[in-house]
Amino acid sequence: MAKTCKVLFQPGETSVNVLQSTTILAAAHKAGVFINSLCGGDGVCGRCRVTVLQGRAVGGSTEFFTHEEIRQGHILACEGRIETDLVVDIPPEARLAEPPEYVDEVPLLADVSRLGRKGVRFSPLVRKTHVQLPPPSLDDNVSDLQRLELALGKHIDSPGFQMGLKVTRRLPGVLHRGEWNVTAVTGYRGPLTEIIDVEPGDTTQPNMCIAADIGTTTVVCHLVDLRDGQTLGQAAKYNSQARFGGDVIHRIIHASQEAGSDEPLRKAIVSDVNELIHDLVQRHRLGTQDVSFICAAGNTTMIHLLLGLPVENIRKSPYVGAAYRVPPFRAAEVGLQINPRGLLYCLPCVAGFVGADIVAGIYASGLSSREEVSMLIDIGTNGEIVVGNKDFLVCASASAGPSFEGAECRCGMRATRGAIDHIRLLDAEHVLSFSTISSAAPIGISGTGYVDLVAELLRVGVIDRTGRINTSVAGSRLTESEYGELTYTIVPAAQSGNDKDVIISQGDINNILRAKAAIYGAATILLKSLSMTFSDISEIMVAGAFGNFLNLENAVFIGLLPDVDPERLRFVGNASLAGAKLAALCHDSYEEIIRIADRTTYFELSTDPNFMEEFVSACFFPHTNIELFPRVMAEFQKARKR
Amino acid sequence: MAKTCKVLFQPGETSVNVLQSTTILAAAHKAGVFINSLCGGDGVCGRCRVTVLQGRAVGGSTEFFTHEEIRQGHILACEGRIETDLVVDIPPEARLAEPPEYVDEVPLLADVSRLGRKGVRFSPLVRKTHVQLPPPSLDDNVSDLQRLELALGKHIDSPGFQMGLKVTRRLPGVLHRGEWNVTAVTGYRGPLTEIIDVEPGDTTQPNMCIAADIGTTTVVCHLVDLRDGQTLGQAAKYNSQARFGGDVIHRIIHASQEAGSDEPLRKAIVSDVNELIHDLVQRHRLGTQDVSFICAAGNTTMIHLLLGLPVENIRKSPYVGAAYRVPPFRAAEVGLQINPRGLLYCLPCVAGFVGADIVAGIYASGLSSREEVSMLIDIGTNGEIVVGNKDFLVCASASAGPSFEGAECRCGMRATRGAIDHIRLLDAEHVLSFSTISSAAPIGISGTGYVDLVAELLRVGVIDRTGRINTSVAGSRLTESEYGELTYTIVPAAQSGNDKDVIISQGDINNILRAKAAIYGAATILLKSLSMTFSDISEIMVAGAFGNFLNLENAVFIGLLPDVDPERLRFVGNASLAGAKLAALCHDSYEEIIRIADRTTYFELSTDPNFMEEFVSACFFPHTNIELFPRVMAEFQKARKR
Repeated sequence: MAKTCKVLFQPGETSVNVLQSTTILAAAHKAGVFINSLCGGDGVCGRCRVTVLQGRAVGGSTEFFTHEEIRQGHILACEGRIETDLVVDIPPEARLAEPPEYVDEVPLLADVSRLGRKGVRFSPLVRKTHVQLPPPSLDDNVSDLQRLELALGKHIDSPGFQMGLKVTRRLPGVLHRGEWNVTAVTGYRGPLTEIIDVEPGDTTQPNMCIAADIGTTTVVCHLVDLRDGQTLGQAAKYNSQARFGGDVIHRIIHASQEAGSDEPLRKAIVSDVNELIHDLVQRHRLGTQDVSFICAAGNTTMIHLLLGLPVENIRKSPYVGAAYRVPPFRAAEVGLQINPRGLLYCLPCVAGFVGADIVAGIYASGLSSREEVSMLIDIGTNGEIVVGNKDFLVCASASAGPSFEGAECRCGMRATRGAIDHIRLLDAEHVLSFSTISSAAPIGISGTGYVDLVAELLRVGVIDRTGRINTSVAGSRLTESEYGELTYTIVPAAQSGNDKDVIISQGDINNILRAKAAIYGAATILLKSLSMTFSDISEIMVAGAFGNFLNLENAVFIGLLPDVDPERLRFVGNASLAGAKLAALCHDSYEEIIRIADRTTYFELSTDPNFMEEFVSACFFPHTNIELFPRVMAEFQKARKR
Repeated sequence: MAKTCKVLFQPGETSVNVLQSTTILAAAHKAGVFINSLCGGDGVCGRCRVTVLQGRAVGGSTEFFTHEEIRQGHILACEGRIETDLVVDIPPEARLAEPPEYVDEVPLLADVSRLGRKGVRFSPLVRKTHVQLPPPSLDDNVSDLQRLELALGKHIDSPGFQMGLKVTRRLPGVLHRGEWNVTAVTGYRGPLTEIIDVEPGDTTQPNMCIAADIGTTTVVCHLVDLRDGQTLGQAAKYNSQARFGGDVIHRIIHASQEAGSDEPLRKAIVSDVNELIHDLVQRHRLGTQDVSFICAAGNTTMIHLLLGLPVENIRKSPYVGAAYRVPPFRAAEVGLQINPRGLLYCLPCVAGFVGADIVAGIYASGLSSREEVSMLIDIGTNGEIVVGNKDFLVCASASAGPSFEGAECRCGMRATRGAIDHIRLLDAEHVLSFSTISSAAPIGISGTGYVDLVAELLRVGVIDRTGRINTSVAGSRLTESEYGELTYTIVPAAQSGNDKDVIISQGDINNILRAKAAIYGAATILLKSLSMTFSDISEIMVAGAFGNFLNLENAVFIGLLPDVDPERLRFVGNASLAGAKLAALCHDSYEEIIRIADRTTYFELSTDPNFMEEFVSACFFPHTNIELFPRVMAEFQKARKR
């Protein structure tokens, strides 16, 4: 019988007992300790490197390490098999970049009122209606249910009501206890309205909903007051599925290993959303029972995992998911902790790699109702590009990686307190200015910060157009890390908020280069398939869970966005969340989003022979063919003359 | 602390331990032993008389017993409190008249084909559809769910499909296992069609449904093959709620005692229906999983108890039930044992005392679609009268008691094997002829048998027009029972099928007199409220769970039905079950039945000052005012002349 070994993880001093030969990564999963793993444990990404301080673990590739490092106990957690009791150190790079942290101070980019949309009338998917019923008499002795329906019909425009058995059983008691004065909770179900619950008296307040954007890297929830549609607060965290892989492909691989392999991923995302909900309601001195429903957007894989639908086939050609349009389910059936009878509305997806986040974004951005043709670029772990107008909608998806969400970069973080979100350099040696979220001491760099930083590094010559750090220019801010990687220090430890250097590494820059190339390449191919160019596009809207405004000029400078008239570029923030919130507050919007999903055509990049070529061409700052970026070219030429 | 006493019930040798001071009736409930109790334990009906053979029980009224009987240990089970260990004998009168017994030989009166209705097209509420889906490809990569919906849309005309979470989770696996060749089970939900289940391969056969009529006294189920709509068999039994009271009022009183008091009644009816379903599927070598749905009619209280809805307020003015129109529920949620995902459709009720049985009957009889005004009289434990046509529908309900269902009469039985269903007497001493169901040796008398028997006893002078047995005429067939009641023997024990006399008692005759008077009186009052008389009615249809044809001439002779032109009288059998079956097989019929419920007006007899007067006037054979029955009067005059 295999021996049991005790593994102690540092920092955090968490220990766990596992059988001999278990991998360190599996032991970490069991202990609830996060270790980064982009490839989901295949031993190919090298992200899960840890150091064995005491004891012995064996096996695994050596390609990621120097001899010295191997001697020091460096090993890949996914490959190192435990031989004896261990003490394992998880270096910062292998930890999730940030523990859950919530701030209220980030501008609510997805606030519905800021979108100022027409055609949106306040009609939430779930409503509470207080009614005073006429008591029954011999002249008016319809059933309790019909009495309630007749009264609700005066407030709610619905062709028909429907009530589940459990509530029907309780109904007479509730009507009598409330002395015919009751509050009904009703949920929109298309042609039917479900009477979800009935409570004695006036319980219309409080009444909340959660609008959620469930991203591969970041999960964001807004708490919305259903009295007036105002957003009370937001909370966000990194998707804790990250420990099963950095992108959807690796998570699907993990989920498809054997029957039940998807369960830990399902539990992880359910628990993430629950954590955000709990935090939001606690902050506002509410209970989970005050949340009547959740309206969720997210990519197809995330929605599938949240609902517990099989994801296996999404990864394999022809990339088919179980269901793209689902009715509202009881949130409790999924494991989400709101009112026990509350509903979960998932917005519709289009294809295996075009999810509800994009459909919600198309609606929220207004693209689908315009005469002129626009483009929407949603920058997340996948970059999705939509081109269309009121008559047609075409969409493609490219795997970009999570760099723009502040993940998987050495100092990457979400746009929360202490994140550098904008920066300007004076020269290779001097930072001119930077700003942080909440003006706190800097502890890391957000997605918008990286766009600025890479553009500035390019302008001052610290990196060249291939992205390589120019050691002859970078000067005193340049160091070589313990793993032999070049890093450029933005803020030294002494001035940072966590006594650590805020840096950007060569690897970070390479990640950002590939991410922007994937997005730009996809946009180019999609336009070509429509026999169009960027000049045919009236407006390019950039969406993403950046948390703060993207400097569009810098985004063009690094070649993330095309070099068009700046007037035609617009940053629209987290359009996915905005769409989810519009749907939550207006059932006409919900229906329109369903129609958008129906009429969006998916363009499969993977089968396009030109995509790889476009991607490689875009793996330059701003592009191999700089003539595509005339304004950027002019700036380079001007700089060279200086 | 109270002592525990052991109570042994005979016959059956069932024993139970209960606390001292428990009533014998409560002990019987605990032991699962049936003791008749019309009043539900109020000590007023005297039906639960038992004999204490050993031990001591005390208390209770003495009015039902002679001194001799009290000395012999006779006591009311509902009032006798247990003092010591007991041996209790339950006399035949206090037992349920009949153990569950099933025959296939009864004509299927409710067979849809016999109704020959127009406008009914075969479209069952739940269907199985076998589809061969095109496998997905890069050019056709809609989700699994949409692929299925697109294929089903070619077979099922529905504005929208909807699928629950559990089935959606299983869907991809089922499609792959079936290699895109699957069978979908779909349920009609008005504007939506629910995809209840999906199975690999062609599982369209077998596919069955149950049409049920849930009466206060009798529960009837038909097993219907959904391939062709043919009825494969029927099963019926007495409603085992009888032990809680003979009519709905006493059952409601029992159910309303305290929280949870309704649970035994709910369990009783659920278990009755399950017993009938099990019997039917076993007889046809099927499993319960082959039954896809149940379509149930029944009175308002029975439907409420089946669904576990509170019944308390049905009994109290203004007589309001919890819900009269309910959506289909998962049958398993109610406890009914069919396919675990199968549905229960309950037809709609109109008022506390006008149930789905009547609404189904109105539809099945065709009354609601005619130009001319007709009347429907449904004879059950309650007698309901409907008057109307395609433009109006008015309905009233009178408590008749279960005599016409063969219950609560000394030799009463359902119309099953050995029941005398028709009889003619030569004179007071001689039976001319009788027939029994299945031509078996007689063991009891069915509802139609009682109508014939009372009419014949009246004709030959054994009873007078008040219903009293005329001892000077009745002759040798007359005896006095051990309880001092006059009885008239129809078939002596030597010729019966169970070695017991088949008799009719003075009490039985009184029951039938009151039952027919309640129905006739209600019909009269309802017509008066419409300023109509029987002459304004083009046809009078008589429905009921008689199980065989009612002799309408005799029904008129005893004053159950008015003395109109025989051409205008028609027996339509179990119209409630027929309506349930039509709804089950045709969703247009189901919808029409819902519309009928909506437009039926309930006329409250209890508040009509003239009802008691009409009832008392009708407590004569055929009526106090015999001039209302000219043909019957002529027959009496002819007989007197002889």
